[in-house]
Amino acid sequence: MFDRFREECGVVGIFGHPEAANFAYLSLYALQHRGQEAAGIVSTNGDYLVSHRGLGLVADVFNEEIIRKLAGHAAIGHNRYSTSGQTLLKNTQPFVVEYGRGGLAVAHNGNLVNALELRQRLEDSGSIFQSNVDTEVIIHLIAASKGERTVDRIVAALREVRGAYSLVFLTPREMVAARDPNGFRPLVLGRIKDAVVVASETCALDLIDATYEREIEPGEVVHVSAAGIESFRPFPAAPRTSCVFEYIYFARPDSRVYDRNVYEVRKQLGRQLAEEQPAEADIVIPVPDSGVPAALGFGERAGLPFEMGLIRNHYVGRTFIEPQDAIRHFGVKVKLNAQSEVLKGKRVVIVDDSIVRGTTSRKIVHMVRHAGAREVHMRISSPPTIGSCFYGVDTPTTEELIASTHSVEAIRDFIGADSLGFLSERGMYSFLKPGEGNGFCAACFTRRYPIPVSDIGRTHQLLLFEAGDR
Amino acid sequence: MFDRFREECGVVGIFGHPEAANFAYLSLYALQHRGQEAAGIVSTNGDYLVSHRGLGLVADVFNEEIIRKLAGHAAIGHNRYSTSGQTLLKNTQPFVVEYGRGGLAVAHNGNLVNALELRQRLEDSGSIFQSNVDTEVIIHLIAASKGERTVDRIVAALREVRGAYSLVFLTPREMVAARDPNGFRPLVLGRIKDAVVVASETCALDLIDATYEREIEPGEVVHVSAAGIESFRPFPAAPRTSCVFEYIYFARPDSRVYDRNVYEVRKQLGRQLAEEQPAEADIVIPVPDSGVPAALGFGERAGLPFEMGLIRNHYVGRTFIEPQDAIRHFGVKVKLNAQSEVLKGKRVVIVDDSIVRGTTSRKIVHMVRHAGAREVHMRISSPPTIGSCFYGVDTPTTEELIASTHSVEAIRDFIGADSLGFLSERGMYSFLKPGEGNGFCAACFTRRYPIPVSDIGRTHQLLLFEAGDR
Amino acid sequence: MFDRFREECGVVGIFGHPEAANFAYLSLYALQHRGQEAAGIVSTNGDYLVSHRGLGLVADVFNEEIIRKLAGHAAIGHNRYSTSGQTLLKNTQPFVVEYGRGGLAVAHNGNLVNALELRQRLEDSGSIFQSNVDTEVIIHLIAASKGERTVDRIVAALREVRGAYSLVFLTPREMVAARDPNGFRPLVLGRIKDAVVVASETCALDLIDATYEREIEPGEVVHVSAAGIESFRPFPAAPRTSCVFEYIYFARPDSRVYDRNVYEVRKQLGRQLAEEQPAEADIVIPVPDSGVPAALGFGERAGLPFEMGLIRNHYVGRTFIEPQDAIRHFGVKVKLNAQSEVLKGKRVVIVDDSIVRGTTSRKIVHMVRHAGAREVHMRISSPPTIGSCFYGVDTPTTEELIASTHSVEAIRDFIGADSLGFLSERGMYSFLKPGEGNGFCAACFTRRYPIPVSDIGRTHQLLLFEAGDR
Amino acid sequence: MFDRFREECGVVGIFGHPEAANFAYLSLYALQHRGQEAAGIVSTNGDYLVSHRGLGLVADVFNEEIIRKLAGHAAIGHNRYSTSGQTLLKNTQPFVVEYGRGGLAVAHNGNLVNALELRQRLEDSGSIFQSNVDTEVIIHLIAASKGERTVDRIVAALREVRGAYSLVFLTPREMVAARDPNGFRPLVLGRIKDAVVVASETCALDLIDATYEREIEPGEVVHVSAAGIESFRPFPAAPRTSCVFEYIYFARPDSRVYDRNVYEVRKQLGRQLAEEQPAEADIVIPVPDSGVPAALGFGERAGLPFEMGLIRNHYVGRTFIEPQDAIRHFGVKVKLNAQSEVLKGKRVVIVDDSIVRGTTSRKIVHMVRHAGAREVHMRISSPPTIGSCFYGVDTPTTEELIASTHSVEAIRDFIGADSLGFLSERGMYSFLKPGEGNGFCAACFTRRYPIPVSDIGRTHQLLLFEAGDR
Repeated sequence: MFDRFREECGVVGIFGHPEAANFAYLSLYALQHRGQEAAGIVSTNGDYLVSHRGLGLVADVFNEEIIRKLAGHAAIGHNRYSTSGQTLLKNTQPFVVEYGRGGLAVAHNGNLVNALELRQRLEDSGSIFQSNVDTEVIIHLIAASKGERTVDRIVAALREVRGAYSLVFLTPREMVAARDPNGFRPLVLGRIKDAVVVASETCALDLIDATYEREIEPGEVVHVSAAGIESFRPFPAAPRTSCVFEYIYFARPDSRVYDRNVYEVRKQLGRQLAEEQPAEADIVIPVPDSGVPAALGFGERAGLPFEMGLIRNHYVGRTFIEPQDAIRHFGVKVKLNAQSEVLKGKRVVIVDDSIVRGTTSRKIVHMVRHAGAREVHMRISSPPTIGSCFYGVDTPTTEELIASTHSVEAIRDFIGADSLGFLSERGMYSFLKPGEGNGFCAACFTRRYPIPVSDIGRTHQLLLFEAGDR
Repeated sequence: MFDRFREECGVVGIFGHPEAANFAYLSLYALQHRGQEAAGIVSTNGDYLVSHRGLGLVADVFNEEIIRKLAGHAAIGHNRYSTSGQTLLKNTQPFVVEYGRGGLAVAHNGNLVNALELRQRLEDSGSIFQSNVDTEVIIHLIAASKGERTVDRIVAALREVRGAYSLVFLTPREMVAARDPNGFRPLVLGRIKDAVVVASETCALDLIDATYEREIEPGEVVHVSAAGIESFRPFPAAPRTSCVFEYIYFARPDSRVYDRNVYEVRKQLGRQLAEEQPAEADIVIPVPDSGVPAALGFGERAGLPFEMGLIRNHYVGRTFIEPQDAIRHFGVKVKLNAQSEVLKGKRVVIVDDSIVRGTTSRKIVHMVRHAGAREVHMRISSPPTIGSCFYGVDTPTTEELIASTHSVEAIRDFIGADSLGFLSERGMYSFLKPGEGNGFCAACFTRRYPIPVSDIGRTHQLLLFEAGDR
Repeated sequence: MFDRFREECGVVGIFGHPEAANFAYLSLYALQHRGQEAAGIVSTNGDYLVSHRGLGLVADVFNEEIIRKLAGHAAIGHNRYSTSGQTLLKNTQPFVVEYGRGGLAVAHNGNLVNALELRQRLEDSGSIFQSNVDTEVIIHLIAASKGERTVDRIVAALREVRGAYSLVFLTPREMVAARDPNGFRPLVLGRIKDAVVVASETCALDLIDATYEREIEPGEVVHVSAAGIESFRPFPAAPRTSCVFEYIYFARPDSRVYDRNVYEVRKQLGRQLAEEQPAEADIVIPVPDSGVPAALGFGERAGLPFEMGLIRNHYVGRTFIEPQDAIRHFGVKVKLNAQSEVLKGKRVVIVDDSIVRGTTSRKIVHMVRHAGAREVHMRISSPPTIGSCFYGVDTPTTEELIASTHSVEAIRDFIGADSLGFLSERGMYSFLKPGEGNGFCAACFTRRYPIPVSDIGRTHQLLLFEAGDR
Repeated sequence: MFDRFREECGVVGIFGHPEAANFAYLSLYALQHRGQEAAGIVSTNGDYLVSHRGLGLVADVFNEEIIRKLAGHAAIGHNRYSTSGQTLLKNTQPFVVEYGRGGLAVAHNGNLVNALELRQRLEDSGSIFQSNVDTEVIIHLIAASKGERTVDRIVAALREVRGAYSLVFLTPREMVAARDPNGFRPLVLGRIKDAVVVASETCALDLIDATYEREIEPGEVVHVSAAGIESFRPFPAAPRTSCVFEYIYFARPDSRVYDRNVYEVRKQLGRQLAEEQPAEADIVIPVPDSGVPAALGFGERAGLPFEMGLIRNHYVGRTFIEPQDAIRHFGVKVKLNAQSEVLKGKRVVIVDDSIVRGTTSRKIVHMVRHAGAREVHMRISSPPTIGSCFYGVDTPTTEELIASTHSVEAIRDFIGADSLGFLSERGMYSFLKPGEGNGFCAACFTRRYPIPVSDIGRTHQLLLFEAGDR
């Protein structure tokens, strides 16, 4: 159950445009990399809420008729990724409920660290939960709150939760966006004409021709209605600890995150990596696509030619059927093919963004060597990953992270490279301008967790599922 | 919204048999006439609950693989009928929730008359509702109750509701059946070997070779667990007011309802009708299938030959596509065809169970006349229907009932019959043995409602629906 | 493969009405009893053919949008039943092909007896077959014919086939109906206004308000186009041998078949049965629904009260899941329930239309006895079934027919009845008026086959199927 | 109809491996870029053929259960792309038929130029066609052929067709691969252990660990059976005219096509382009993904930094719903986002592989300029596209090709670039080694068609389609 709380997601919201749902749909399209398992949109025409949610990619969940039914001037949307097999429709967001004060929908990116605690308290006083997602706790807190205005009830609820959240709420007459005081996950504010747009990343704004205005600040609550925008800061101040992994891997390179272009940050990490971990080599190749900017930066600084030595098959689906007659490096091979023409006889630097379990790197190194590379030097544009994330990025348990239990040399031996180099923690911040403050959470590289996790794993006496659910 | 609360349904429960779900499925099969819009089964293996629900007929909702997944020694099931277009999966029963004390499922036949009142109270204190079905109120009351044992919490909840209910509850370790103090809707108790069975009608017992034991009494709560059966009577006594319309139309003729065989009751109503409303005629024909037993009784008493002058097409689906080039009597014609060979030149008595709006009777009379009948005498084996039901039978609003605003002569004129006769209220009880007490609700024929209806129609400010729901 | 050639079906055609497809759809609805496995309609607007076919009931295969797409002034339709598990979409009719002369569609009721022979010849000269249905042979013969007009090519093709066929063809500009010279299967001609209608039974005409004109005669070919109707008799004369089993069981009772009302024929068979095979009894009950008219006739002649001692569940689907813990008489019990209230202590005559394998009758007799009947007398309104049908009715192989290897006494013993009586062959024709000629095929009761069967069962070296077909 | 004959496709075949279907499936996976509209596999166990085909991506069409059903030691597969809206299942390959000699399946990449002519001839002699795909002509020719062995009949049929074909046939006991005498489309031969593999490109061999042996030669017919491999050259010799567009755009960069690595060819074209069409600029960016190798070559030769100035969204589906409130450059924008951080103030060279209609290039140029580029220089790594392809690559009609009617300057003006440069025809062959012969078809750049096209567009009097087809 605890695992099911961990999710990476994308959220969007549009208020004040007659084609709000269509723009929400396109924004989710642009944010598809943040979650491919399920998608949903809730719209409103000022009187009631209309929702559609489904399992799969945005393009599969929606069609023109559905978008037409999602009429109205405001809409919020959500993309979801989850590691567990439990991809149930009932866990799909945005959540929509009807409670005493009317209809309310919510889309959440992040992860609460006291959700189970709060859930137990709520269940003891008679609340009935429908899902296994922490977001539902927020809704029950809102329903139980005594505030008069929706925004007051939301603030009251958020005062009780701890952890990471970038949230967008919708009622028939207002939209509310909120970001946790630490600013763990990104959330930006933009405009199309008079309409207000919020989204996880700026690439969503780009696609719909919206103008980027600014980040929604850590701890800020933005209330949007026919009366305009209001901004609140109802929570006690906290140190900013934005997720640095959005830069390393998660965000789209063309997005502006925490007010910096991701592609440029990654290229800089590649340059810094070349400084810290140089290699005698003939060519540098990326693990596509995420390793491309860092490999370009590495090549530039190291003066090495950049080549696409690994070609990616972009049609790879979620699953494929493996024959019993085992294929070498299968799993990696369906996604990547090593080009012997490019690699034969060469000393090759491979640049990747991170090493998690080590098994993929191992397959890549063997594949490149099998294609004829004379030497293989693996370079990673981040420090060794040693800690699980509890704030909304799906990482394996600490035990599964190879760097949490192995030295760099042992990892090098495991993956079979001639040399292996990680970026230093300090180098990871080389994108900062001189004097610029460091407001990042890098717990996955340091195990310094900015907020303690109070949810204890509890064994669930009751496994409730729908036999027919897919 | 109020309309959506009204439903006819069938419920079943089996406890203590290794193939509980399979028997529940067959029982729902036998009770299909009580609801064709949706079906569901929840089973348990003692540890957790497994459920499957779907829209459509029992045969379409379940298959062998699904039944296999519904493993365990106990199961409850539900068939549902609803008039509104809102046949949403989320309104489908059994309802299953996880709350502080574990998992709970419930299947409900009947209609509460104070559901909205209770719902408003529960929403005010923070409860979040998922459906528009009154049954959900009962679950929230159970979740909010402070009792220790499940059965205590159920009793506490039922003390707050008023109206008609035949209920079956399931938790991982126990099954609870309950019937309202008035005994509005039927519920019977049976056995297969050591297993306990409850069902709306005995035809469900017959199909699975279960032995009929007795009715569950009005106001009785039956608790079934590994420890055996316990019976409680926790509510204040109330006069028995069982729905007489189950005899007239709703129940299957081969069922035993309120400890009488329905077929024999209907035949007696036909005999009584022949006494009260004789007709000079050559043949008597039923409106098949529900009018058959009464027509047999009428023919027997009147000494008239019984013929199948109307043939029913049993493959008729829910909808069919009508051409613009109108077909006479379409609507009735897709279900019934009048046989001119049988009817030509004859004086015909048509026996039907009731007249609701009068439009169907009008089409039948015209069709029979068009097929060559010389005279058409309509006889109805119940009194004129003048009141809506608020206890679980779907009847139109009082305004739509032709007999609520028209005299018998005016109805005869409208349907175009040569004569029209209804059974008297007194004659409707002619099946009673001499001295036997009358414990029936006949509010649809008398407008004498045994329990006042406190739910006031409220306009819902929020229409919450899933655009993609089917 | 041979088995797959045997099918019962319903066919319809409408020419000259702007809502032709909608009327075809309703006609198929009325003919649903002739085939429940698949349905299809092909329409034309004068330029090209549009088709839609699907597996399942008419109501499931078509919806309003599909009917709208099937635009045009003419349409033909087909219902199909098949015993084999191979219910493939590709075997569904009407068949539609494009060949040198344009588009052609065909719907077929009946069974050819030299299809395999012809198919081998056609394959040897390069024809490629798509299905396992004998009808496809006719299409290939038409494609290979050298005639100029469509109707000439059709006649040329039909001259080569032997067996039973009631056929309707459609091209963009004409409709052709044809019936084999023996008149094995029914086919009638009617009118709605200026439009021409053909259908297997008159119940299809009744539903759409079409006027019945006459049978299409054995050996007649009817050509319908904008120029009007033409009738041809291109085949050598043959003795009429219409299927008597349409009267016994297959046709709808309200249909006019071979110019007689089926209900009245069945009632007469019941009367005759009472004369030939009387029984000392208290009541007579039918096996519903097919046994009802004969039971009424039996009761009338025998002076016995008619009762519905067996109640039919009309929601029974194609399959249901049986528990391992066997249920007595399962199979029959899901369809029929015996009413002990009606049967207890009684001497009961059960009237059914025929006995095939005997297993169903056995279950019914046991069920009636178990419900309390004192004596059970089975009466069958046809002679013992001793031969398979090769002309379009699906009967088991001769070996499976209990009467082909057992005496009446042995069958009585097997089914467990106190007495058993069949109608005599002569009595089966008691519906004929004095002097009226007998033009029937009763091969299933006599093994006198009017046309020899030349197809020899061949083992197919190639089993070609689509893994994904449903 | 003529248009429907043009298709790009991928084909595979495996003979002699117990997991043949699974390997065929993975090969189709690797060849997904050659066709995304439909996929199919036919396998055999030596006795009969089993097939599964569906619309969509390989990953969507197949699952584990289906692959299990496709049992046997041999299998062939097909991926299909088609421009017309008529993506009907019946047009999906491999085609499977049963004819006089048994079962036969075929998968085809290429396009025949005398298919209509042959079809008319076949229809005149009674053949009935099921699809609108030229491949069906080959099957009918085989069925009508008189040869004894399958391979003889195939050769006889291929002698009658003209055009482009890379074909794989399967019968229960043999596999046959054939390539047209001109060698228009690629086809390679490989091995896994004792099993023989054929595939359109070597990337399919790589994924399944098969060893590449050689091209199947133009005009070669390869017969594979339990007896081993035999090679035939039954056709008159013809000049080799392999499609050069496979190098420019169509093939996967990591494939070996016509015995050269595609990535290296493309890089060389980029280098040559830099020589022929230099530009004063700051950076070079590709149109991803197809422009990447040429852009790397261009940058290398021109001494310009390579940057990913356009980021591709890899989750783009076939369709998306555009709002009415128009978005600038929509269509391109859903696939590509221009990074202002990278482009701002720069003089930018954009490298793309070809210009077809010019509308996409126009949107890209505007988008790059809008993102802040100071100058935009478009460079194309092929000559202007001026001719439609009739040999199996889907290109628009000649009229739609902007270069067929506009000068380079006019195109530059239309797309809004500061300069525009194409590769020369001669430069397109700069990848040839000195003295190496030129055996390519470049008709799309030169309008010199190696084989005349005899099919004349005919208007089809009959449009035959299934209303319910998807």
